[in-house]
Amino acid sequence: MADAENPTEMIAEMGARARAAALVLVAMPSERKAAALVLASESIRAASAEIVAANAEDMTRAAEAGLSGALLDRLRLNEARVAAMADGVAAVAALADLVGQVIDASERPNGLKLSRVRVPIGVIGIIYESRPNVTADAAALCVMAGNAAILRGGSEAVKSNRAIHAALVAGLKAGGVPVDAVQLVPTTDRAAVGAMLKADGVIDLIIPRGGKSLVARVQAEARVPVLAHLDGINHVYVDASANPAMAAAVVVDAKMRRTGVCGSMETLLIDRDYADAPALIRRLAATGCEVRGDASARSLVPEIAAAAATDWDTEYLDAIASVAIVDGLDAAIAHIARHGSHHTDAIVTEDAAVAERFLTAVDSAIVLWNASTQFADGGEFGLGAEIGIATGRLHARGPVALEGLTTYKWIGRGTGQVRG
Amino acid sequence: MADAENPTEMIAEMGARARAAALVLVAMPSERKAAALVLASESIRAASAEIVAANAEDMTRAAEAGLSGALLDRLRLNEARVAAMADGVAAVAALADLVGQVIDASERPNGLKLSRVRVPIGVIGIIYESRPNVTADAAALCVMAGNAAILRGGSEAVKSNRAIHAALVAGLKAGGVPVDAVQLVPTTDRAAVGAMLKADGVIDLIIPRGGKSLVARVQAEARVPVLAHLDGINHVYVDASANPAMAAAVVVDAKMRRTGVCGSMETLLIDRDYADAPALIRRLAATGCEVRGDASARSLVPEIAAAAATDWDTEYLDAIASVAIVDGLDAAIAHIARHGSHHTDAIVTEDAAVAERFLTAVDSAIVLWNASTQFADGGEFGLGAEIGIATGRLHARGPVALEGLTTYKWIGRGTGQVRG
Repeated sequence: MADAENPTEMIAEMGARARAAALVLVAMPSERKAAALVLASESIRAASAEIVAANAEDMTRAAEAGLSGALLDRLRLNEARVAAMADGVAAVAALADLVGQVIDASERPNGLKLSRVRVPIGVIGIIYESRPNVTADAAALCVMAGNAAILRGGSEAVKSNRAIHAALVAGLKAGGVPVDAVQLVPTTDRAAVGAMLKADGVIDLIIPRGGKSLVARVQAEARVPVLAHLDGINHVYVDASANPAMAAAVVVDAKMRRTGVCGSMETLLIDRDYADAPALIRRLAATGCEVRGDASARSLVPEIAAAAATDWDTEYLDAIASVAIVDGLDAAIAHIARHGSHHTDAIVTEDAAVAERFLTAVDSAIVLWNASTQFADGGEFGLGAEIGIATGRLHARGPVALEGLTTYKWIGRGTGQVRG
Repeated sequence: MADAENPTEMIAEMGARARAAALVLVAMPSERKAAALVLASESIRAASAEIVAANAEDMTRAAEAGLSGALLDRLRLNEARVAAMADGVAAVAALADLVGQVIDASERPNGLKLSRVRVPIGVIGIIYESRPNVTADAAALCVMAGNAAILRGGSEAVKSNRAIHAALVAGLKAGGVPVDAVQLVPTTDRAAVGAMLKADGVIDLIIPRGGKSLVARVQAEARVPVLAHLDGINHVYVDASANPAMAAAVVVDAKMRRTGVCGSMETLLIDRDYADAPALIRRLAATGCEVRGDASARSLVPEIAAAAATDWDTEYLDAIASVAIVDGLDAAIAHIARHGSHHTDAIVTEDAAVAERFLTAVDSAIVLWNASTQFADGGEFGLGAEIGIATGRLHARGPVALEGLTTYKWIGRGTGQVRG
């Protein structure tokens, strides 16, 4: 039994059971994984009353602890939200399984038949806060990709997470998935997070889901590889040739559709030769966005506030935008290289050559031409679901879904070949 | 100018220049990169006398310092070895460039055209020992994949590395590649290695090439992602149904073709029902291999030595093998899961179902059926070259060549789409 008194031993022991479960999952056909997830979805739906009741206890405790309205809303579950969670698990069951896919194959001159085959990663640790739906979403994606998951949710959602986990695992078990395939860390002690981050060889990949301080801690301490993004300091660059109506629509959507998502625009860069800059800035401000401009922007639209040096490196996640007037494409690229966070950056232009230079030179996970940065989302990209967005350069970049939860192995089938 | 007095600043400054060079490389067409590498190859060939002379100084110093014969041989360059190095650079120039390759593409219902496009990783740090040819080999692969490289060779090869680097960069420069695309760390101070390992955001990937102590240090200290292998504790499992002649040929080749390579077999597992076990063990011993057996193996062949518990976790890199008699496939899989290093493991069997179970269940970068583990090599796999073999589960697994030195970005081309 896991011993919460010694987090390192507890994670090692959970990891060993997860590894054994992963060995069963790696050989499980797609249909069986999908069928088990459908049962898990139904099990969650059937447990809706218990889950909502458990959540009510978390909500009471959180309200007493003085959590803000936004955090309380993230924590809240009702019948509709539990139903959406169950739908999400069923939706993952409907995704095409990539495990076993042959990436490429060749026959060597000596007759050795070589192929690269997609396989699960193994044991994945998910460290998350607030939103209890991650318990179901993340576990479903891990299982469909053949991985075992070790989940560590936040203390504020402990009862909700336990209720969801119990329902999910009951369904999976009925479908033949080992119960150790999805384990919930039994303690919300912070030391358990530390033990997961250091569990090199036990956990193969950590995915943090939560606020900046959680992600920063994970990235700073982890010895296990991490897929995550810390910031979404995203830019829209409006080129001289941009269509003014399109520029306004894209900029307003990128900033204001939802200001709290990682794909929202934080900085607007406008080409000095773009004639409609004053109208664009005023249009953005008219939506209720606080606009902070550099000297050139303020000379065009004096009523906006002045941006401080720190504004260019700030992810507001709010109805605030910084605006700089730049000397053309190269200056925009240089600004993004200096201040961006390699998440999502967009250009608005009618000039295809300018667009292609931007798309090549801007080193971000997602680069867009004439589209809003708010499309940075696995669902919008057709991936069916996402477990997060990654801004690192290795393994998976941008929205991470089933493929990012797999790796490959080389398989060689011979007839006695020796190197000789 | 890089300041060796402050390694962190020095690496940051080299990294900034590397990043600027990478921005040029990312937009450079394949033909131009290839042409520059051909010029670099010719430049190395033309500088052969200077390189051999510089190497002679390193050799003298190394001999005085008492380096072993094997290490001296690794360090030694002569005209033939320099010619081979130049050939290697030219061979990389002939590889198919993957940068710009469209991995997949779709058109979303809203008309947004989405594609995943292969791009360089950015700035790659190579930390290596002894063999000065890595200076040319690794740099060529990095440049062909559009990356800038920061090379840190060992102190024993400092003059050789500088001579090779000077010739290489002169050729690249003549071909239009920025000189900062391949930089050699000017100091062999160990603190420079530490600074590279901690240069998160400056260096995107570290690849260590060298002995176990170097790789272990890199894996323990790095904050930057690492592609490497620490051990090659590789197994050959001989199933009951194995063809005896094939089993003997594969086992002898896997162990004895070259005992010092990471793909060599260290442990032989024999099914208890394999009738020819005594003959197989005697055949291996007859090649001059020291065989260390478990109790069952020694009861079959009493003249072999006894294996200690540590033998199953030891990479001999020598003419030594441990041998265990196991109770069939599942026991072999369990032994490899417990003692293996996720590098290369092979099965010899005439039973396809048994083989496929082994290939699925053994979680190694390379799994082979009826073939020698010594095929674990990028050249043998048709990759044209390799920068190393990786046993981690993320990004690239097994032999790492051009593809492993790239990542991808999502490119979306729209007509003004907003999320709304």
